[in-house]
Amino acid sequence: MLNFQMHIPTKIVFGRDEQKNIGALLKPYVKQKVLLHYGGGSIKKSGLYDQITASLRAADIAFAELGGVVPNPRLDLVYKGIALCKAEGIDLILAVGGGSAIDSAKAIAMGYYFEGDIWRVFDDDLHVEKALPVATVLTIPAAGSEMSNSCVITNEAEQLKYGHTDNCTRSILSVVNPELFATLPKNQIANGIADMMSHIFERYFTNTEHTDVTDELCEGVLRAILKNAPKVVGDPSDYAAWCEIGLAGTFAHNNILGLGREQDWGCHGMEHELSAIYDIPHGAGLAVLTPNWMEYVYKTNIPMFLQFAQNVMGLRTGARAAEETILEAIAKLRAFYAGIGMVGTLTELGIDDARLEEMAKKATGYAFGEEYGQGHFKKLLWQDVLAIYKASL
Amino acid sequence: MLNFQMHIPTKIVFGRDEQKNIGALLKPYVKQKVLLHYGGGSIKKSGLYDQITASLRAADIAFAELGGVVPNPRLDLVYKGIALCKAEGIDLILAVGGGSAIDSAKAIAMGYYFEGDIWRVFDDDLHVEKALPVATVLTIPAAGSEMSNSCVITNEAEQLKYGHTDNCTRSILSVVNPELFATLPKNQIANGIADMMSHIFERYFTNTEHTDVTDELCEGVLRAILKNAPKVVGDPSDYAAWCEIGLAGTFAHNNILGLGREQDWGCHGMEHELSAIYDIPHGAGLAVLTPNWMEYVYKTNIPMFLQFAQNVMGLRTGARAAEETILEAIAKLRAFYAGIGMVGTLTELGIDDARLEEMAKKATGYAFGEEYGQGHFKKLLWQDVLAIYKASL
Repeated sequence: MLNFQMHIPTKIVFGRDEQKNIGALLKPYVKQKVLLHYGGGSIKKSGLYDQITASLRAADIAFAELGGVVPNPRLDLVYKGIALCKAEGIDLILAVGGGSAIDSAKAIAMGYYFEGDIWRVFDDDLHVEKALPVATVLTIPAAGSEMSNSCVITNEAEQLKYGHTDNCTRSILSVVNPELFATLPKNQIANGIADMMSHIFERYFTNTEHTDVTDELCEGVLRAILKNAPKVVGDPSDYAAWCEIGLAGTFAHNNILGLGREQDWGCHGMEHELSAIYDIPHGAGLAVLTPNWMEYVYKTNIPMFLQFAQNVMGLRTGARAAEETILEAIAKLRAFYAGIGMVGTLTELGIDDARLEEMAKKATGYAFGEEYGQGHFKKLLWQDVLAIYKASL
Repeated sequence: MLNFQMHIPTKIVFGRDEQKNIGALLKPYVKQKVLLHYGGGSIKKSGLYDQITASLRAADIAFAELGGVVPNPRLDLVYKGIALCKAEGIDLILAVGGGSAIDSAKAIAMGYYFEGDIWRVFDDDLHVEKALPVATVLTIPAAGSEMSNSCVITNEAEQLKYGHTDNCTRSILSVVNPELFATLPKNQIANGIADMMSHIFERYFTNTEHTDVTDELCEGVLRAILKNAPKVVGDPSDYAAWCEIGLAGTFAHNNILGLGREQDWGCHGMEHELSAIYDIPHGAGLAVLTPNWMEYVYKTNIPMFLQFAQNVMGLRTGARAAEETILEAIAKLRAFYAGIGMVGTLTELGIDDARLEEMAKKATGYAFGEEYGQGHFKKLLWQDVLAIYKASL
């Protein structure tokens, strides 16, 4: 186990009806005005918008609004939000939505105090000390942004999608009510599940030794997802199963499962290049890349992958060679993704081989030197990333 | 899963050498003066006292001192600490030690602001909003107080030992360096392991349905303890194994493993009566009571106990009746405790049957009415507690 620091001050308010109390929950944190930040019309159609605004009014909290967040949230709306917060005297941003609305809110919150262009924080990975407080009402369990210390923004002009990690981006309060997930379309449910699983895989696959407790936490939450994902895809009104997926999604990315471990993040790095250019759902890209990444890297640490095969995918080795079991586990993971309705190739996502080399070089930071790479479990050079992209076509 | 709130703002700084940096870690929180609070001479003999005070001086932090905390920490020292904090203008208490030093610090921290006798907070279970900030350097992994929202104080004059839970008692920062555990005597190691296991059992055994994620978390951390406990007892210099036990102990009681579950706490309630009167180590009492409690209550929820037998104690049911497997699992837990050097009966702890009825009635709050009880998995009336005490003799 490696030395680590953990500091997760987000208050989670979990369960039925909790969003109806958002005004009272936020009251202690608001002196001036809230910015209500959200995506398209779905929260208006579902009635959630009315519940939230009624609760804010009942708590006598003034608010301004900025809708229009899109999946792979964009820098231009972040700029607009920063200007709006300054003009309106905002002192808290309430994101209502999934990871996109929350990440957009986090970028606005950092940009409020940051002097200069907020994109520099993403592009140059600058440390930021201070941000406006962000609170969330989660509507899609996927990104884990409701309790994570990171956010991802797309600069569409430059076709770049960069993440940024800083503890000031942890939301101060997040409402997670699994009832709100019941109206999600099935493809969005599946994408979210692939995203949260990837957040765990990125932490789980490690060469760090002596990680019993966090191995158990990763494996346990993955098993709970594998068990409950088909239930929520099969019946999106299954509240009990949604509770498991909702809690799993939040814990997948608050970093408790990754404490004291060297983490990988290769698949996330490779996927960001895909969605920056082709604007595909993040989870869909991850579900395609992850098994191909596994097949490419497993020989780096056979015991780790055998543990995955046994403890996560539930396989017995018996008399077989370890590698055979590992390959079966990867096949079983592919079958799981297919079973919840996900496609298995980049081709099906509308991506051909035209720009693979360009993306592989961007993913590894090739511009800074040929020796730059992506990922830690096995460091991938651009040629490795290209091979994984090609295997994923 | 039940609705829940989670708010754990404690910063954990985990790993080798971290205590040497305590001055810089605390600097942002201290304007005036720190109270250094600890037990007997062990931290002076080990050199830890010198490391801490040197680090505080290097960070230019003034401090006063109050030593003398004993196991089952006492109310009279809490009174003394409150007076000292007021006289010295203390604005942060740094507890260096195990659960006793930390709990004593928490009681002093609450008492600093509480108007009236701090014992009333414990006796009448009064909600407290404000406490001095508490930081900790952990020397015994056991109580989990370094990240929990509770503390336990013994009123020796009245032979009462009461816990109190309030979020203001979460420490703001805790250093957990498993190197510091290498000098612990073996009986103290074993007591600590029984205590952290009990913190998980109290949360694990529940009648709440649909608790997959937290079931997995409880079972996983318990398995990691069962694996690593014999290692640290066998070789207290095993840093890698101590990392697992240290992380497990902190997570056993920060309540992440108990989110959304009705929790029991029967064994803790029964044990507090034992240590209040007989001043035995809390963990020693728990190791005796827990298997007897299990045998008394398992029929309340056979599937839950079968899950314990399979997923925690690693038993296969096969063709056997479920109850047979459960009883074998309880026997295996007893054998585990014995294997790390713990005694199995109250008699061996110097407790006879003289005051069992008195303790059973105190444990269940019999004075308030015959229908009062202890525990939630199965509500225990005083007669039930008496039966468990007798079975434990």
